[in-house]
Amino acid sequence: MSRFWVEKIAGLEPYVPGEQPASDTLIKLNTNEHALPPADAVLTAVRDITGDQLRRYPDPTAERLRSAIAAAESVSPAQVYVGNGSDEVLAHLWFAFLKGQRVQTLDTTYGFYPVWAALYDVDLTEVPVLDDFSVDLEALKNDDAAVVLANPNAPTGRALPRDEIVALVESNRDRLVVVDEAYFGFGAETAVPLVAGHDNLVVTRSLSKSHGLAGLRVGYAIAQAELIEGLNRVKNSFNSYPLDAVAQSAATAAIEDMQWLEAASQSVRDVREVMSAGLEAMGFEVLPSQANFIFIQHNTLPGKHIFDALRSRDILVRRWDKQRIKNWLRVSVGTMAQAEQLLVVMREIVSAETG
Amino acid sequence: MSRFWVEKIAGLEPYVPGEQPASDTLIKLNTNEHALPPADAVLTAVRDITGDQLRRYPDPTAERLRSAIAAAESVSPAQVYVGNGSDEVLAHLWFAFLKGQRVQTLDTTYGFYPVWAALYDVDLTEVPVLDDFSVDLEALKNDDAAVVLANPNAPTGRALPRDEIVALVESNRDRLVVVDEAYFGFGAETAVPLVAGHDNLVVTRSLSKSHGLAGLRVGYAIAQAELIEGLNRVKNSFNSYPLDAVAQSAATAAIEDMQWLEAASQSVRDVREVMSAGLEAMGFEVLPSQANFIFIQHNTLPGKHIFDALRSRDILVRRWDKQRIKNWLRVSVGTMAQAEQLLVVMREIVSAETG
Repeated sequence: MSRFWVEKIAGLEPYVPGEQPASDTLIKLNTNEHALPPADAVLTAVRDITGDQLRRYPDPTAERLRSAIAAAESVSPAQVYVGNGSDEVLAHLWFAFLKGQRVQTLDTTYGFYPVWAALYDVDLTEVPVLDDFSVDLEALKNDDAAVVLANPNAPTGRALPRDEIVALVESNRDRLVVVDEAYFGFGAETAVPLVAGHDNLVVTRSLSKSHGLAGLRVGYAIAQAELIEGLNRVKNSFNSYPLDAVAQSAATAAIEDMQWLEAASQSVRDVREVMSAGLEAMGFEVLPSQANFIFIQHNTLPGKHIFDALRSRDILVRRWDKQRIKNWLRVSVGTMAQAEQLLVVMREIVSAETG
Repeated sequence: MSRFWVEKIAGLEPYVPGEQPASDTLIKLNTNEHALPPADAVLTAVRDITGDQLRRYPDPTAERLRSAIAAAESVSPAQVYVGNGSDEVLAHLWFAFLKGQRVQTLDTTYGFYPVWAALYDVDLTEVPVLDDFSVDLEALKNDDAAVVLANPNAPTGRALPRDEIVALVESNRDRLVVVDEAYFGFGAETAVPLVAGHDNLVVTRSLSKSHGLAGLRVGYAIAQAELIEGLNRVKNSFNSYPLDAVAQSAATAAIEDMQWLEAASQSVRDVREVMSAGLEAMGFEVLPSQANFIFIQHNTLPGKHIFDALRSRDILVRRWDKQRIKNWLRVSVGTMAQAEQLLVVMREIVSAETG
């Protein structure tokens, strides 16, 4: 605490990201990184960077990258905003469109939403998810406040189909709906095709999960041009150059390699199925997931016990102390070898306790 | 304009960075990029990045980079904050320490300060620089409001010696003084050694100019640990991972190569002297510069005329329409070859008009 902090700073409760241990012997299934490294084209793009590209300022508008995203998503470049990870994109979005307002989100969702709400003086209503962790769409529709919704949701992995997103967006065309598709690409339907017909919708994406690029920090938003212009006004009043030359070039290569995306997504879905079936056979409840993680609880063993037992056997997963989900664990989908190792270790843990 | 913009957004006047033309035939002396590409060690660090480093989240605390900066600057890692360019560092700093307050800066200085002031509801007092564009230190000292000072100043290039910064910082130990050293490394004295004894001082730096890394987006702040903690609280409530894995690794290599910094700085100072002397011989007033640019006006020809004439001959410099400096041009220090070309072209322009 310093006497120079403005009053607000002392009261902030910053977001705490999942642990990033330096150890290489751990099986790290706690932060939903992609199981596979990114496409070869991405590494080539990184290695092709020249001294002159590093010396000069990058393109402040990231035109090549935005055009690549626009082509991949069948929108126009004016409908694409890019930033330093989808967290930065979302932060600017809360500032541009939600600051000082009342906003609805879920009581079980991405833990950064309440942090941005506090940072930007938002009055946040956290609508409870139903008992099966599905979204209470009727409650969201019956309230006129703006909505920020992760789809698929985290940490549950559950996704709403597009027709339910349509119903929400159209329930009141004068309120903004933000669909956070950080976990795009693992089976869920995207809301991007709705952007053309709905000026009250913003879809955000991250390359961290879908493209195996958590280390690169690139995210984007897709919306009608007026909303994108609002984001640009905030960005250009904050930092003109959020994406460095390497990130712009590497992310463009990633977006253009659609074949990698397809194959890598299939691989994650295959492993997810093996993990889910194996865990269910040991007495776990596994929520239906369309993300690159699963959300599980055991029918007798407490979540904290399993978390600690896995940790002592060098497997790191994620758990929260929050009342509604304290018995649950979020487990990232790893490689097939990691999934098999997880199942072996979990079988030991479960049989040691349940005989 | 969208009906979803919060009221503040429509009123923002975003910062406009210098033009980044795609053309490679231009001599680009308009955005103060370093004349030389970065150290070889930086390119090696970029090329050594692995797919697994891109796949995994980067270190959210950038420990290796902060330790390298701490070692280079003889401070502790807890006194170092790093961000996505010094613009992001400064943006968070305005939020953490200046939001909603009254702040002093200069009437002729970095054009982003009034933009952050507007973004964060700061009541900005722009203290006029003196006729020779030097800082009116007495005016700043006689007002108790916080101070944000670029040193060397832009676009003038003038720098205050450390003893005058001491006098300002000690004139009132209960107000914050921010010294923006974006143009560190070209001859000016740094205020960093004052941090140990003054808890009301923050020094910010950029790798864009001193290290030839405008394309990489890395900046930092040095201050006592309590102020750094305030910056971390804002950063962790905004975006946990502002620096990607490539930028962290490449910036660490840059900071550790002190020999490159010394040699590159000497090269810039040598060219600056040649440019200044050559222009003075043609009737230009050249302010004494300790940055990698010079600020010039001709004794008869209008700045706009020279700007246009240079542009038509493929030399790009920077000029503002602001009343006090509308006759002046800011010219980045290029390579010796670019400087010689500039002098040849300028001689043509001047003799065509003055005979």
